[in-house]
Amino acid sequence: MTDTRKTAVEYARQHQSEFLDELKAIVSIPSVSSDAEHKPDMQTTADWVAAKLRALGIEKVQVMPTDGHPVVYGEWLGAPGKTTVLIYGHYDVQPVDPLELWKTGPFEPTVRGENLYARGTSDMKGQVMASLHAIEAIVKTSRLPVNVKFMIEGEEEIGSPSLAKWMAAHKDLLKADFCLNPDSGMIGAQYPTITYGLRGLAYFELRVYGPDHDLHSGVFGGVVQNPAIALAELIAGMHDADGRISLPGFYDSVRPLTAEEHENFLRLPTTAEFYKQQTGAPELHGEAGFLPVEQASARPTLDVNGMISGFTGQGQKTVLPAFAMAKISCRLVPDQDPEAVYQQMLAYLQARAPKTIRWELTKFSGAPASISELDLPGVRALAKALETIWDAPVLYKREGGSIPVVGEMQTILGIQSVLTGFGLPDDNLHAPNEKIHLPTWTKGTEALIHFFFNL
Amino acid sequence: MTDTRKTAVEYARQHQSEFLDELKAIVSIPSVSSDAEHKPDMQTTADWVAAKLRALGIEKVQVMPTDGHPVVYGEWLGAPGKTTVLIYGHYDVQPVDPLELWKTGPFEPTVRGENLYARGTSDMKGQVMASLHAIEAIVKTSRLPVNVKFMIEGEEEIGSPSLAKWMAAHKDLLKADFCLNPDSGMIGAQYPTITYGLRGLAYFELRVYGPDHDLHSGVFGGVVQNPAIALAELIAGMHDADGRISLPGFYDSVRPLTAEEHENFLRLPTTAEFYKQQTGAPELHGEAGFLPVEQASARPTLDVNGMISGFTGQGQKTVLPAFAMAKISCRLVPDQDPEAVYQQMLAYLQARAPKTIRWELTKFSGAPASISELDLPGVRALAKALETIWDAPVLYKREGGSIPVVGEMQTILGIQSVLTGFGLPDDNLHAPNEKIHLPTWTKGTEALIHFFFNL
Repeated sequence: MTDTRKTAVEYARQHQSEFLDELKAIVSIPSVSSDAEHKPDMQTTADWVAAKLRALGIEKVQVMPTDGHPVVYGEWLGAPGKTTVLIYGHYDVQPVDPLELWKTGPFEPTVRGENLYARGTSDMKGQVMASLHAIEAIVKTSRLPVNVKFMIEGEEEIGSPSLAKWMAAHKDLLKADFCLNPDSGMIGAQYPTITYGLRGLAYFELRVYGPDHDLHSGVFGGVVQNPAIALAELIAGMHDADGRISLPGFYDSVRPLTAEEHENFLRLPTTAEFYKQQTGAPELHGEAGFLPVEQASARPTLDVNGMISGFTGQGQKTVLPAFAMAKISCRLVPDQDPEAVYQQMLAYLQARAPKTIRWELTKFSGAPASISELDLPGVRALAKALETIWDAPVLYKREGGSIPVVGEMQTILGIQSVLTGFGLPDDNLHAPNEKIHLPTWTKGTEALIHFFFNL
Repeated sequence: MTDTRKTAVEYARQHQSEFLDELKAIVSIPSVSSDAEHKPDMQTTADWVAAKLRALGIEKVQVMPTDGHPVVYGEWLGAPGKTTVLIYGHYDVQPVDPLELWKTGPFEPTVRGENLYARGTSDMKGQVMASLHAIEAIVKTSRLPVNVKFMIEGEEEIGSPSLAKWMAAHKDLLKADFCLNPDSGMIGAQYPTITYGLRGLAYFELRVYGPDHDLHSGVFGGVVQNPAIALAELIAGMHDADGRISLPGFYDSVRPLTAEEHENFLRLPTTAEFYKQQTGAPELHGEAGFLPVEQASARPTLDVNGMISGFTGQGQKTVLPAFAMAKISCRLVPDQDPEAVYQQMLAYLQARAPKTIRWELTKFSGAPASISELDLPGVRALAKALETIWDAPVLYKREGGSIPVVGEMQTILGIQSVLTGFGLPDDNLHAPNEKIHLPTWTKGTEALIHFFFNL
């Protein structure tokens, strides 16, 4: 270990207590982006982050307005000719309800055992602070070996509605070689993890209309198509017997998994048994010919997220409903285009929907999948850093969920993202009693110190 | 016309306004039998009916307890040696949701045009009142030519769960020559109608369970069966491409239509065009090889009455639901057995449901179909009465709905029912904006006056 690297890691170890106090300070601010009542808290949190950046010697720090909550920007470009890393984060958090299930207040950070409990500890103020503490350890002991820029937004938990427009308006400011995005997580405390792919999303609402009003199922049953049955038949036709999706052309642009990826997936601890335990499903079910972890993260899906028709209260009502609705969404993989999937859904419905009903399809949102090359210099630097600290081989995974900003950065800024993070699967993200595992968090900070030196 | 008959009809004409006020009074009471909150309203309505019977000089009037909502009983046996008619009715009504689709409150009776709008106007407080007003017109002007008994129940809309036991316990009290049951309806305002057959009912709730809690559709989508999709696939498999029901053995005991019945059905004005107009469906749809009126009244059906799963609010939520439910009911024809149909549904589910879900089937209610002879004295008296008032030949039809009490009276009391009623197909039974066509209702009262004199 070089001296600079060593002294930086030592600084981090000596300041663990101060780092924890800082994390407690930022998670004490209730920056719930979805709740208009918390608008002042959003500004307070953005100002807190900006002040911390300034204290680290970061330049041009600004809390920049967007159409929604502000973005905190800053940069340090004192290493000309070297790599520029754009560090992404979000300072907003999920709502806290149901409040009564929290053992201690969501904004009263409390250490119990090896964990710190509070909303935002894991998702993702803790990850933002790990990045800032790594930089602090370096700048207080030597000098950053690379250029850094910061884009810390306040709307991730509501789908980043203002960010794409804001990024498009600040393309030059955000110019970088790649993005470090620590908003992903680890498979387990002993498994250092890099996420190199995320799925995209295409979300629809399908509305089926039969008779023009609810009918008595005795008086009219048998002579008109039942919209709930028509909807069920349409949904049933969307998969074949092998669990493959039947929309015409759906798989045409799906990028096949490489043999190397399949080998990597075989090494992951996310086995069939893991998925059975996590879901409680009686048996797993998915597209034939793929590992469960591939089905859940690297292959496209079609799910019904909600469905309603007719009488759903207690007991019985002999109604033949006029209307049925389903929310249907597809998780997408490279190189599927959400708009093309919408067209495929339309084509399927045009071909399959009977003349005995009317139907409407609404497109709610669409985001493409994203994937990074595994031999990106940023990925290699991070992998080496994680292996140094954990003394274990890095696992490469793809994630089944969507982080729209990753795809948008690729499209708007033309840069790939290196995804990591030091949260664990049992951190209760988006749920009561969110926590972060402090030993893992501390190791994360140290790994990020190595990461900057490895670049 | 004899003098007594004439003066009774004149009384009815002179009291149209009072009769309408009485109908408004009874439909103002929200006697929704399926909702425990309305239990006090059930008693209020029963008491209201009992008071009306007493005011007509009916004797032994009692609001008699059952295992569920009470039955109103009364009798007038002042015509020894003459026919005894058991008049059936129900004072309970269907639920009112979706409430927002009512133009005026469901329990705020409102006249618009020739119709009175409120829950229960047509099904069947209006029919009960037509019977009582016919009797009032006779007893206020002369004397009833026959004996009458009343059995007005409060659980028809929930499948009359307590009535069979109650009837079995009061067989002597209910002894009669036949039952007048005005809970059927007319084909059109110009078509006096007698109903000789009714469909039965088998009503189920199918609950499908997948994962043991709602999952994030990104993190777990692709690896577990979606319960809403599993339910859709099960529902889709319940019909074949010809609109026939796929439950094993479902048609084995279905009594074929006779050639004579088919000829009668061909004469009915309930053509395909009629069903299109009544339902507003884009196209009709039903079992191949049958007339629409046969599909809707004389052939068995399977309908989804309600269906729910996951997120059904505005916008999107990327949930993979843990649960899905459908209310599924079959209309039955002679000689199908509701219990056998339940077993067929179980057999279907056992054969078709995948191991990736758990399922539960609940049987809510079952009633066999019924069919009557056309040359009963009560049928002849009613046919003559209807022809007198409408000056048109009576049509004989089968009805698609179910009136379980008709089959039970046949089994328990050994009497057949004469089915009629003065509701019209567009009365919005079981739906928002239920109404009764007042001119037809008035003619119905007059026809029932003739009916009693014709016996």
